[in-house]
Amino acid sequence: MPPGTHHFNARYSVPPGPLFLTAIRARTTIDAMKRLALSTTLLLLYVSLVFGQSEKIFMDTPTPEKARQWLAALTEEPHVSGTAAEHKVALWVADRLKEFGFDVETVKYDVFLNHPKNVSLKMTGPKEEKLSLVEDVYSKDKDSSSLGQFPAFHGYGASGRAAGQIVYVNYGSPADFERLKAMGVSVEGKIALVRYGGPFRGLKVKEAQDRGAAGVLIFSDPADDGYARGDIYPDGPMRPPSAIQRGSVLFLSLVPGDPSTPGYPSVAGAQRLTRGQMQNVPKIPSLPIAYREAEKLLRELGGQRVPDAWQGSLPFAYHVGPGPAAIEMEVEMDEGLKPIYNVIAKIPGAVEPDRWVVLGNHRDAWTPGAVDPNSGTAAMLEAARGLSAALKSGWKPRRTILLCSWDAEEYGLVGSTEWAEEHAGELQAKTVAYVNVDVAVTGPEFGASGTPSLRDLVRQVISEIPEPKRGGNVGTAWEKRLRDAWAASAPVALDGAESNFELQLSRLGSGSDYTVFLDNLGIPSIDFGFSGGYGVYHSVYDNFFWMSHFGDPEFLYHQTAARFYGLLAMRLSSSKIVPLRFSNYGTALTQDLNEIRSDVIRRARTADGQPFKPDFSAIVAALREFDVAGRDADKAAERLASSDNSAALAKFNDALMQVERAFLNNEGLPRRPWFRHQLIAPGLTTGYAPWPFPGLREAVEKKDAAMFDAETKKILAALRAGAEKLRAAAR
Amino acid sequence: MPPGTHHFNARYSVPPGPLFLTAIRARTTIDAMKRLALSTTLLLLYVSLVFGQSEKIFMDTPTPEKARQWLAALTEEPHVSGTAAEHKVALWVADRLKEFGFDVETVKYDVFLNHPKNVSLKMTGPKEEKLSLVEDVYSKDKDSSSLGQFPAFHGYGASGRAAGQIVYVNYGSPADFERLKAMGVSVEGKIALVRYGGPFRGLKVKEAQDRGAAGVLIFSDPADDGYARGDIYPDGPMRPPSAIQRGSVLFLSLVPGDPSTPGYPSVAGAQRLTRGQMQNVPKIPSLPIAYREAEKLLRELGGQRVPDAWQGSLPFAYHVGPGPAAIEMEVEMDEGLKPIYNVIAKIPGAVEPDRWVVLGNHRDAWTPGAVDPNSGTAAMLEAARGLSAALKSGWKPRRTILLCSWDAEEYGLVGSTEWAEEHAGELQAKTVAYVNVDVAVTGPEFGASGTPSLRDLVRQVISEIPEPKRGGNVGTAWEKRLRDAWAASAPVALDGAESNFELQLSRLGSGSDYTVFLDNLGIPSIDFGFSGGYGVYHSVYDNFFWMSHFGDPEFLYHQTAARFYGLLAMRLSSSKIVPLRFSNYGTALTQDLNEIRSDVIRRARTADGQPFKPDFSAIVAALREFDVAGRDADKAAERLASSDNSAALAKFNDALMQVERAFLNNEGLPRRPWFRHQLIAPGLTTGYAPWPFPGLREAVEKKDAAMFDAETKKILAALRAGAEKLRAAAR
Repeated sequence: MPPGTHHFNARYSVPPGPLFLTAIRARTTIDAMKRLALSTTLLLLYVSLVFGQSEKIFMDTPTPEKARQWLAALTEEPHVSGTAAEHKVALWVADRLKEFGFDVETVKYDVFLNHPKNVSLKMTGPKEEKLSLVEDVYSKDKDSSSLGQFPAFHGYGASGRAAGQIVYVNYGSPADFERLKAMGVSVEGKIALVRYGGPFRGLKVKEAQDRGAAGVLIFSDPADDGYARGDIYPDGPMRPPSAIQRGSVLFLSLVPGDPSTPGYPSVAGAQRLTRGQMQNVPKIPSLPIAYREAEKLLRELGGQRVPDAWQGSLPFAYHVGPGPAAIEMEVEMDEGLKPIYNVIAKIPGAVEPDRWVVLGNHRDAWTPGAVDPNSGTAAMLEAARGLSAALKSGWKPRRTILLCSWDAEEYGLVGSTEWAEEHAGELQAKTVAYVNVDVAVTGPEFGASGTPSLRDLVRQVISEIPEPKRGGNVGTAWEKRLRDAWAASAPVALDGAESNFELQLSRLGSGSDYTVFLDNLGIPSIDFGFSGGYGVYHSVYDNFFWMSHFGDPEFLYHQTAARFYGLLAMRLSSSKIVPLRFSNYGTALTQDLNEIRSDVIRRARTADGQPFKPDFSAIVAALREFDVAGRDADKAAERLASSDNSAALAKFNDALMQVERAFLNNEGLPRRPWFRHQLIAPGLTTGYAPWPFPGLREAVEKKDAAMFDAETKKILAALRAGAEKLRAAAR
Repeated sequence: MPPGTHHFNARYSVPPGPLFLTAIRARTTIDAMKRLALSTTLLLLYVSLVFGQSEKIFMDTPTPEKARQWLAALTEEPHVSGTAAEHKVALWVADRLKEFGFDVETVKYDVFLNHPKNVSLKMTGPKEEKLSLVEDVYSKDKDSSSLGQFPAFHGYGASGRAAGQIVYVNYGSPADFERLKAMGVSVEGKIALVRYGGPFRGLKVKEAQDRGAAGVLIFSDPADDGYARGDIYPDGPMRPPSAIQRGSVLFLSLVPGDPSTPGYPSVAGAQRLTRGQMQNVPKIPSLPIAYREAEKLLRELGGQRVPDAWQGSLPFAYHVGPGPAAIEMEVEMDEGLKPIYNVIAKIPGAVEPDRWVVLGNHRDAWTPGAVDPNSGTAAMLEAARGLSAALKSGWKPRRTILLCSWDAEEYGLVGSTEWAEEHAGELQAKTVAYVNVDVAVTGPEFGASGTPSLRDLVRQVISEIPEPKRGGNVGTAWEKRLRDAWAASAPVALDGAESNFELQLSRLGSGSDYTVFLDNLGIPSIDFGFSGGYGVYHSVYDNFFWMSHFGDPEFLYHQTAARFYGLLAMRLSSSKIVPLRFSNYGTALTQDLNEIRSDVIRRARTADGQPFKPDFSAIVAALREFDVAGRDADKAAERLASSDNSAALAKFNDALMQVERAFLNNEGLPRRPWFRHQLIAPGLTTGYAPWPFPGLREAVEKKDAAMFDAETKKILAALRAGAEKLRAAAR
């Protein structure tokens, strides 16, 4: 029996109580935390009475041994999208899900993808030297061999030849390029050498291309995931000198999915853009490189010393160039339509078969992908096996559950986007929530991002998941970590008005498959994982050796992730009232807005000329209204909890489900209409990192008063529509 | 004519105006800054009418050429205190001051000092290797030779032999040792390897000794002043791999000066402590080492990985040990009474000869000392030459000016402390202010620390000093830099109550010769310098080559420092009303107190058990009272400005001068009675960094409610006594 299981069982032993809902909504002071601890305990028997036996059967099913077995099988070889190896893994996953007794469909799309045919890189100045695009083999790890592995390349990277002097541009953000310009250095006709970190890599290439660079090299600085962060592979989890971060260079924040069918599904007969017509793929060649190779170039850069924040952890002072370091790169891609496979298993709902809970994880990997994404795949399979056990014991979910294994996520969320675009109407009409797991495990620390209406559910479920190594439950450890971070950084008020800690889910940006569900379809979404030191992202060392030595040697956190994933699905699919709660949503949005407001004030302090001081008051007022409506809806949910009027329940549930949809606007965001959510989006210039109130944020970045006003109107409409849904629910 | 001189002349050309005093007291909003610019201009003619010609003659005298010549002469050889070389430099400085026409006295003290007789260090595990204690010679720099240079040693370091495994303890602060303990690692019987930075080096040794370490090695991590901060010597200003930071390991925050006569002067016949009786020198041996040698040890440390913040910039992941790296060190000191020489020149006051303005700079250096301290010595000599020129043209300072060239500062502020202890009564009765310069120049950025009552004067004078490279005046560049730092970090208030920037001098901690004047005698003090990238501190590369290639190749900032130093002295010595102003003093103290209050609130957020929540209200009230008294005193100063009643002026001036004295308490601070100032002291555990309200701060650190109450009483008495002086002045 794995550690933690006994402890978990012991928790189902105390009488129920009504305190729980109150406590989790209370601002978490020490007192409230005590109340929460008590009420959580009280809740557990309540839960055990209502869902009790099925959930216990589910929770007892996932094991570390099985997770290890799944992961070993999934990561036998690299399985890049569009290859035979990846098709083989798709079939293997489908077979497992069928074995568990589910109804499984394998959905094929032909999408635009690239594989490298020929890549080469050489240093041409101040001396000649071939630079490596493959990784070192370590004898202790059989999987570190690059056999069956593509050499370094970028998904959707352009074919071409480029040559020129090197210019170092830090993380390659717009601000970095501006800083470089202020130093009097241009990348025009040059090769931009940028480091990973900060913006999504495609946006680094976009920025360099927009400013006239001839090519781009992206390296992993040891400051960011190498020796400066811990011991390096194969003695530790961090990035060794030859490791290369592959990845997509799609311009992700414009529109994800197959770039030959932007905004519509890649079904047979779909109209296709040619590569030349695609607006979201680079036109200049780019390559990822290891820090051992980057060091050779950086050591030979002259020119000015870098700004302090640009210095990385290679052992010398960095300079920006240009040159004398120079390179020549050649990239030849095999590109065109290639087959991808989404595997979708369905557990039909007993009461509301037309209401869906969608679970997703991608399966394709740049390398063996033991972490990214197959720790998630192993966890999903264990969750699925657990649900199967519950079903066999008689559990019948009220709503339908879909378990989705996506393909081609790595290229730009392609599998999930094409499928969701194909089923957009149905998904919007039916889906209660989408729950994503990509990287499930790199270590022991739980983290969750998601729509604020799902905070209470996440908080409830995670507090029922045993922490396998430290004892207690995962929720307690998680809340303590967030609370400590708040304690260290939150501003202090000396007037006695000390603010209190309010636990929030992180906002969802992009970089995984929840994107289409949340940003395009307005479906409440969650993404979660367990994290630790992890420096081998998208390298050949992201393999079974890594996971079994560093990430999760006992596979306990795979088991834990499976439990959380499945229990969340059970609650989402079986709660009589859908577990979307809105009392905290207004607070969360206010926090988001206040960050933008603070940013505006801070910028105004140093503004030369006219500071940009837009008026937020209308949105502040709308948020207040939304907040009241949210609290009223939650009160209505409490009143309805004991109702058996199924028409009233259905109406109420549908209203709650539609609140997030109300935040969409068919125009979408400025110049990126696919992103329709008005309150959240990936940053236009960040890709990964979220921008709450994206229209406002963009207007503030650009000091564009007209854009600010136009976006304010759209946001007001969204907030009012959301509040209206909440009021409708409460009535 | 050096750059900037023409510009300077052009400034004396606009009519005077009364706006100046108002404007510098106004909170600096954009408007106030405009007013300041205008009023500064207006002031200049006013100044030129009153002091005019003499100040112009002074300002025109210092030249880069002369400063360069002085620095070259001063840094011909290393001149460690107690050596013949340093005596030679003392005589040379006295000769220059005599040449300028001053009355010069050379004051000898015999003080306890040490020089290394024999030092050796070898790695004994996991392999044997001798470690170097000398620095590399670079052919381009004749002064990089270690000829005439002591090998690496610590001032007041103990003789002895120590051997054992290495444990890495980051900066060696009490918090670092506590963290190590929490990791289950002890330094008992081990060799603590700590890096420079954070606490004063003597306190690192004290902390290690208190916890049972057998010996201490202190190295300079490239993260702190090596390649991570810029190009390294001889290609840049930062620390190269073999450079060693010498320095004193006196327990500086307990009591500075000659440790054989703690708290009283080292005059002939003084009672002396034996080394064994001294409480403020280490008992375990310590040595400073280069990062090239430290790397050999750090690479061989096993055990746990360091906490993130402990990682330095050597290119591998750091571990804490203990071992397998081990060393053996032997240190044999030549220690005992050795002669030191303070050189003191006097410019007698014409009206108030018994009121003094004291200027000081130390002269002794661990190495050639082109930066530390002889950039200051060169600037002081140029200021002296300028004052001499003004005197020759007929200028007569109202008050007496003393120009002091201190010896043995490097060992623990010995020369200044012994002299000031000898003349304590006279200094307290007569001194208006003490102005220190130690390192005058490492680059172009002006910085000043000081007593809040001197802020207005510093701000006024610096705004009249031409910026030699960027144009305009130094004050504008300084205020902009401080304002930008404030803009980036000051908390934002969304309720519209945006706080405004209030320029403040940094508080004085310790580490230079102002310490005895401010902390022991209650004399308002200033310390200043111009800074830039400087990584060769206390190494053999702190020499003329460094200064003439990196720090100040044109010697323009030496000229600029001399101008500021001398003009400040002219104003302090010649203003009819002493230029101590108090309208901002209450604000400054309130900011200091609020930092402690915020710290208390932040600690309470994460407190396990009973949070320590002391009551600050009595001090807040006393500060309010002090603030009012300060503003009233400044109003009285404005009223008196046109008075010629010399008795009234003398009484008013003496009252202003005595305000700072009123902050002393003869008991001193807890267990360090020599530190008598109740509102400011070097941190007990920091040495360099200031602790405002030191008694409160210590009580908060220790969560000692009884100490908090006792210290509150002492502070209240000090604040009330200060307010009483101010009210007496205003009457």
